[in-house]
Parts: sequence; C-alpha cells; structure tokens
Amino acid sequence: MHIKVLRDDLLNGVGPIQAVVETKRSLPILSHLLLETSPPCLSVFGTDLDVGVRKRVPAQVLKEGSIALSARKLYEIVRELPATSVDLTVDADLTATITCGSSEFRIKGLSRDDFPVMREPKQKGIVLDRRLFRDMIRRTLFAVSYDQTRYTLNGILFRVTPTDVRMVATDGHRLAMTTIDCDVLKDGSPMEAIIPRKAAAETLKLLREEPGEITVEISENHLLLHTDDTLIDARLIEGQFPNYEQVIPANATKEVTVNREAFLAGLRRTSTVLGERALPTTMKLTPGKLLLSCVNLDLGEARERLDVEYQHEEMSTGFNARYILDFLGVLTTEQATIRLQDPLSPALFAGKDDKRYTCVIMPMRI
Amino acid sequence: MHIKVLRDDLLNGVGPIQAVVETKRSLPILSHLLLETSPPCLSVFGTDLDVGVRKRVPAQVLKEGSIALSARKLYEIVRELPATSVDLTVDADLTATITCGSSEFRIKGLSRDDFPVMREPKQKGIVLDRRLFRDMIRRTLFAVSYDQTRYTLNGILFRVTPTDVRMVATDGHRLAMTTIDCDVLKDGSPMEAIIPRKAAAETLKLLREEPGEITVEISENHLLLHTDDTLIDARLIEGQFPNYEQVIPANATKEVTVNREAFLAGLRRTSTVLGERALPTTMKLTPGKLLLSCVNLDLGEARERLDVEYQHEEMSTGFNARYILDFLGVLTTEQATIRLQDPLSPALFAGKDDKRYTCVIMPMRI
Repeated sequence: MHIKVLRDDLLNGVGPIQAVVETKRSLPILSHLLLETSPPCLSVFGTDLDVGVRKRVPAQVLKEGSIALSARKLYEIVRELPATSVDLTVDADLTATITCGSSEFRIKGLSRDDFPVMREPKQKGIVLDRRLFRDMIRRTLFAVSYDQTRYTLNGILFRVTPTDVRMVATDGHRLAMTTIDCDVLKDGSPMEAIIPRKAAAETLKLLREEPGEITVEISENHLLLHTDDTLIDARLIEGQFPNYEQVIPANATKEVTVNREAFLAGLRRTSTVLGERALPTTMKLTPGKLLLSCVNLDLGEARERLDVEYQHEEMSTGFNARYILDFLGVLTTEQATIRLQDPLSPALFAGKDDKRYTCVIMPMRI
Repeated sequence: MHIKVLRDDLLNGVGPIQAVVETKRSLPILSHLLLETSPPCLSVFGTDLDVGVRKRVPAQVLKEGSIALSARKLYEIVRELPATSVDLTVDADLTATITCGSSEFRIKGLSRDDFPVMREPKQKGIVLDRRLFRDMIRRTLFAVSYDQTRYTLNGILFRVTPTDVRMVATDGHRLAMTTIDCDVLKDGSPMEAIIPRKAAAETLKLLREEPGEITVEISENHLLLHTDDTLIDARLIEGQFPNYEQVIPANATKEVTVNREAFLAGLRRTSTVLGERALPTTMKLTPGKLLLSCVNLDLGEARERLDVEYQHEEMSTGFNARYILDFLGVLTTEQATIRLQDPLSPALFAGKDDKRYTCVIMPMRI
C-alpha cells in the first residue's frame, strides 16, 4: 500500500472516527482504524461492533492495499503533522511508514483480515435533508432513557410512513416527539426502527451542519446512513417501542405563551438552589404572570417572575426543571407554549406555532 | 447589611476567589466567602488557610455589615444573573436576600465571627511590575516538585537582593531560574521565601495580564501580595531551599541554536509515540542538523529532522521531552539555545540572547 494524502483530509477522516472506537474493548483490533485504498480515495473505517463509521477522503493511490492502525495513536500523530502532503506506505510485514515534511513515523499495524466487515448500502433507502435529520435527532436525543432494564427506551424510535417521518424518545418522565410531513416513500414500505443512543449521538457529531442529503436504509436489524463521503452502520435495538401516543394529553387546553430565552434564564437561575437533589420547581400561573420558585431547605430559596400570556384561573404545578431546560435548549422558536390540563396531569411543551415538535413532561408533586 | 452592586463587579470578586476555596474541607466555614462592607466597596474574602484572597469591588453601601455565604452557591447564582444592579440585604438571623431584575434568592449564611482573619499589609514591601512578576511565576511554576518528601521543593524560591529579583524551581530532574536586574530594595533588607505551588498558581490566575504594580511583603512566614483591588495572603514553605547554583553547569559550551516553534512542533510529534512511558527522546547533533528520535517497542518510532546552528562534533544525548516542551511552552524568544558539555552532563536551555531565563535539564541514558 502506498498513498499520498493531504494532512487535513486525513485528519478529517481519522478525527471523527477515532472518537467512535473504544480503546478499552477486549478485542485489540477494535481500537484500530482500517485504512484501505479505494481509488481515488482512502477509506477510513472504525467500529465498536455497535456503531461503525467509514469515511472516504481524497487520496492519490500509488499502490493499493490496507492496514489497521491504532486509532488513538494515528489520531495523535496526524493532529500534530503540518498541513501539507502525507506519504503513507505499508510494507509486507505490516509496518506503516508515515512521512510528512521533516517528520517520519514507523508504526506496526494489524492485518485487515482481522477487521470486522462493514455492511454496504443497497441504494434502496429513503432520502432526507441532512440538516432536518440532524435536527430531529437533536430534538429527541436528550429524552432517551438511561434505564438499562427498559432497553427499548435506550434509543430513539424512527418511524417513516407514506406521509411523515417521526422521531420519539422517552424515559418515562418526559417524552420528546418531532414529526416532519414529507413524501419520501415513493416506492418503499413504511419503516420503523429504534436507533440506540450512541449511534444517534455519533450521527449528530458526524453530520456537520452542511446542506445536502442523507440516505437512510434499514437492513437486517441494522441502520445504514450514508452521505457523499460517510457511511454509518448502526445495530438497531430489537423489540417493541411502547405505545407512546397514549401519554400525549388530549385535554391540555390551558395555554401559556412565554419568551423562550427569559424562561430558560429564569429556570437556570432558580435551579441554582436545587443542588444535587431532584426537587420540584413550582410554576405558579396567574393571568399574565408566571412565578417560578424553588425551595431547598439545605440551601435557600429562589423566585423568578415572568410576564406571560395566560388567561385562565390561577394554577400551581411542579416540574423537574432539568426536563424543561433540555427542551428549551433545543427549541428554536422565539416563544414557547405550555399547555396544561390540571396540576397533576402531564403538560405539553412546544414552540409557538410549531406543530413539528412537542415535549410531554410529567408533573412533580409540590 | 444592605448594598447595591453591579452584577459584573460582584462576579469579578466572587468568581476568582471561589476557585481558591476548597469545598471538601472539614470546616464548613472554609467553603464560604466572607462578604463585608468597606465603603465605597464590598470586600470578598475566601481562604483555604494556606492561601487567602480578598478583592474589593465597587458597591453602594446602604448599611454596613458582613455575611459568609457558600462560595459555590453564590458563584452559581451570580453567574446566572443578568448584567444589571444587584441588591443584597442581610437580616438579623443571617439570611441573605439577593434581588436582581425579576429574580429573588434567599440563602442562609454564617457569621463573620467564625471566619479566619486575614493579615493586613503593612506597606513595607517591595514594588514590582505586575506583568513581570506574573511572567517570573509562569517561567518557573512547571518545574516545582510534586514529591511531598522533599517539601522545600514544593514551591518557588523567591529571592530579592539589592541588585536583582530571582525565582527558582526544581524537581531534581530539571531546574528553571529567572532573574531580573532591578533596584527595588531602596530601603529594605534582602528577602528570601519559598512560595508554595498553589499560592503561585492562584497568583498567576488572579493577576490578569494588565499593566500595573504589585507590592510584595513577607511577614511572619506569610507572603502578602497586593494590587489596587486584590490582596493575596499565602503561608510560606518553611525550610531551606537546596543550593541550586551548584547544579548549573559551568562547562556547557557547545551551543545549538534552534527555532523555538519548529523545535516545539517536532518534539510534540516525536512524543506521540511515547505513550505513557517515560522513554528518552534522542537528540543527535551533527553540524547544522538536529535529529530528534523516539523508539517505543510497543508502538513504533518517530524521527524529526531540524535545521539548527551547531558547529561542534557529532553528539547524541537523551532527554525527557516533556521537560523541554514545558520550557519551550513559556519561552517567548524566536530562537532557543541549548548549551551542552557531553551526553551525560546537564544541558542549559535558554532563549537566544535572553540572559534573564534559563532551564537546566538532566540527560537520560539512551
């Protein structure tokens, strides 16, 4: 194997993928990246068996071949190289020689025969806007459960019907759901899959906020995502996602409209007295006003007054402020709405005039 | 107590000082900051008994008084407040009420009677340029020893004579020394003190890179540093700093001149193959050339060629690259010089044409 590749291109391949592989796995090969020629590109592939990522970067291939090199070590070296051309040769005993400017490295590698195989896409998936897909993950990922006994909740439900694409995540205390109307299933059947947290989080990092498309394909309980230069292969969570539609309240009709930034800043301030404890934050509504308050007997109390649009009777209800902060953190509209039924029923949080995204948050007793 | 203070001024006092106090001390009062009126200022004081810091920030004092509040909690609150005026009142049962904009906090405090007393400066110290003093700490701090059995090496020697001011630190493997010619002892006696690492590190953080002066005073085994608004009180290390002058080589006459940035980048690159092990980096000198190389049997090897000024015979010597990187990281001259005697003698590292700063680094066997 012998290639020439620009240092920035090589870093662009090695950097994001080395973050996916785990260095503490029992199989040493899994802490490596597979470099493989694929003229006119170099393909960089890493996997932890649950999530695999392959990127193609432009390279001048002088002799075809492949080698697996320590992901962390390769990243540390490439990061320190000057921004010029890098020459990589691999000899018969799997030693890689990297030369760049006045530097030369010789590193022992492993054979590609020991490397796990990556699934190839079959070009039968649906095509979505990349930024839209990324936004959908961002709007639901925080609600994924960490409870390992409820493993179907450890991922994001991804559902495609002939009329819409939806993502849902819930941990039993709150639920985030985003739905985009679109007509992507021209010639395919509806699909449904549970994308594990790590695969969703890595996808979010790998899909930069650049315009473009992404092809989504489900094959043998794997999710394959591909863009022009990147292929992500994630093992899906098997099982049935719970019936989430029944927890979305139908009678939450008392609406509050509040400025997103003021609400966020107010909750951040009142949360300072919460400490480590999961104490409720009280929201007291009176016409035109929202009073946020927290009481922590160990530390003290905090109160915050906000002007809001609210025209119903006085009501006090308690929430875990962390859940509301997570929601407000990904919301992009200027105003947020809260729709309530009564103090002990779940509340519906959404962006003002934005029907594509909603969060259900269970109240806490105050 | 009742004051009005701008949020940014309050944060400017609370932020740097909360970083000094320790939250895990057995004495709860030490995790608090003492707020005390001192018209037309508010004084903020925190201490871990080894290092105490007091800052004065402008405030409108409506009623004099004092209170000790949890450092971390106060910092978290003030950081989240909007940049406007903050009203702080303390009632008879030591509850502080903080109001700012639409926010209100009530926090229980402790009495100032429980708070350690801060030493007051006596205006008998020497006056130095603040940036120069800061630079001297920065140039020596990294060489302070972590070996607790050699406690006099756990700080920076600070020595003032009628003609110069010097700081020295060493851990037995390397020594950093910086000396400034100046005539500050107009009417005082020479001083010598060992400033503990934490006090030096906090001083570095607290003295922003602003022009101005700093007064340095030694009193009863304490170092008092004061600027217009900040007073630092550090308990000194007692004992005798070793005779460091004997380790400075007198016969290191073979001089190498190398570009600082190229040397730094080259060492960073060759160090990538070192891993966690304290392996030597070999410097092979031939006329006009320096070859850096590292060999790690587990990982591979790295080589870097540098053009240098060197006119003596070929010589190979080994060093801990970390020590050279620490030195190069604080050097400000464009060119660095290395003066060598032979491969097994300590080497002298300095900035080209800069007699104020030098580092002695012991070689490693290669």
